[in-house]
Amino acid sequence: MIFARVVGTVVSTNKEPKLVGKKLLLVQPVEPAGTAKGAPLVAVDAVGSGEGEFVLLVQGSSARQTTATEGNPVDCTIVAIVDTVEQGGKTVFEKSKDPAQR
Amino acid sequence: MIFARVVGTVVSTNKEPKLVGKKLLLVQPVEPAGTAKGAPLVAVDAVGSGEGEFVLLVQGSSARQTTATEGNPVDCTIVAIVDTVEQGGKTVFEKSKDPAQR
Amino acid sequence: MIFARVVGTVVSTNKEPKLVGKKLLLVQPVEPAGTAKGAPLVAVDAVGSGEGEFVLLVQGSSARQTTATEGNPVDCTIVAIVDTVEQGGKTVFEKSKDPAQR
Amino acid sequence: MIFARVVGTVVSTNKEPKLVGKKLLLVQPVEPAGTAKGAPLVAVDAVGSGEGEFVLLVQGSSARQTTATEGNPVDCTIVAIVDTVEQGGKTVFEKSKDPAQR
Amino acid sequence: MIFARVVGTVVSTNKEPKLVGKKLLLVQPVEPAGTAKGAPLVAVDAVGSGEGEFVLLVQGSSARQTTATEGNPVDCTIVAIVDTVEQGGKTVFEKSKDPAQR
Repeated sequence: MIFARVVGTVVSTNKEPKLVGKKLLLVQPVEPAGTAKGAPLVAVDAVGSGEGEFVLLVQGSSARQTTATEGNPVDCTIVAIVDTVEQGGKTVFEKSKDPAQR
Repeated sequence: MIFARVVGTVVSTNKEPKLVGKKLLLVQPVEPAGTAKGAPLVAVDAVGSGEGEFVLLVQGSSARQTTATEGNPVDCTIVAIVDTVEQGGKTVFEKSKDPAQR
Repeated sequence: MIFARVVGTVVSTNKEPKLVGKKLLLVQPVEPAGTAKGAPLVAVDAVGSGEGEFVLLVQGSSARQTTATEGNPVDCTIVAIVDTVEQGGKTVFEKSKDPAQR
Repeated sequence: MIFARVVGTVVSTNKEPKLVGKKLLLVQPVEPAGTAKGAPLVAVDAVGSGEGEFVLLVQGSSARQTTATEGNPVDCTIVAIVDTVEQGGKTVFEKSKDPAQR
Repeated sequence: MIFARVVGTVVSTNKEPKLVGKKLLLVQPVEPAGTAKGAPLVAVDAVGSGEGEFVLLVQGSSARQTTATEGNPVDCTIVAIVDTVEQGGKTVFEKSKDPAQR
């Protein structure tokens, strides 16, 4: 899994039938400390996350192993909202102190 | 999923039997705001998209999870035509104002 | 799927039983207009292609969705011989005018 | 599989139901001799590894082929704790002499 | 599939139960003519290859399609020992003349 920041939304009225009713979020992959890394992706959300949140993405066939995405043409799913990341004994991310979230 | 622009078509008379009758589109992966990113790919279309359109691609085994591609040797499928992309509260793409589409 | 040029062959007498009898081709991924891109790969051929031909490769689990490769330890399969590629209204590849083919 | 160093932990209270009760570890992919390579990933642990350990990661659908991860939305799993790596007749990693472990 | 040179071995006493009894080899991906490309990987061997040999690797879910790896948490398997590689009518690799092998 990789870290990402939810940065927006994607709207499509003409989409594959299995995607109807699924919210498509724009997510920016980031390093644990928050630096953007690579191009934004579009993910389906399995945990009720919202814009600004720091999340975990699962990719590939594993992206279809959630109730929200089973059997769907989806290769990127948000499976967790991150509370804290500890690296080398230091807290490098803490949701309650995250300036991006109000 | 990633964003792409449909930029052309690929014709092949000698192809794997399961691909017969499927339209192969040339697609250029792009960033949300439209800059090309990486080499073009060839995708099967599951939503009736046409040249110039801004679409979402699904890749890997998930590309086979549409009616158009089930059980086929296909690793890249167009699953949505994008209407709008919002990023950080701003509309960064809007189909009705897209110069590439008439 | 991506474009590739068939550039050679690979011979192996000691290979996994399921690969016995399968021709292994050396393929060079290329851009639509023909420039090499990245390192050569080894592919199994599902459409009777030969050296010099411009083809489409499917990768990952989808490479196993052909009669020639079903259930095999194969992650790269040639699924089409390309006749023409049109990009932005221009023909950027045409098999009958391809200098690499006779 | 690739080598990685376990460098931290990730805590999430709001995660996909199938991930509840699974420990999420922050892992840094490394070269055999230990140099970091690319961005950290988040992995589920199938072998009881701990911070500082030198491990093997399996990715993609194969990451779900362990008792700890079967059927889960997981694309990166720790499947082995490395004791030694020999390269070209030389021991390039030896757990008992690893300064990162006590 | 990609080319690789077997460059060493990896020993792990604490590994996922399904990996017990499987030899883990250190493999260096290479170009057809033998130049190293990218970081070494760890592969399970399905064809009895040994250090120094020039082999083919299959990756992803296809790495599990051998008797040696079926249902295992393995994403990289050696499926062939290469005898010869011909590119553009020239033999670019020939096992019997390979200085790395005896």
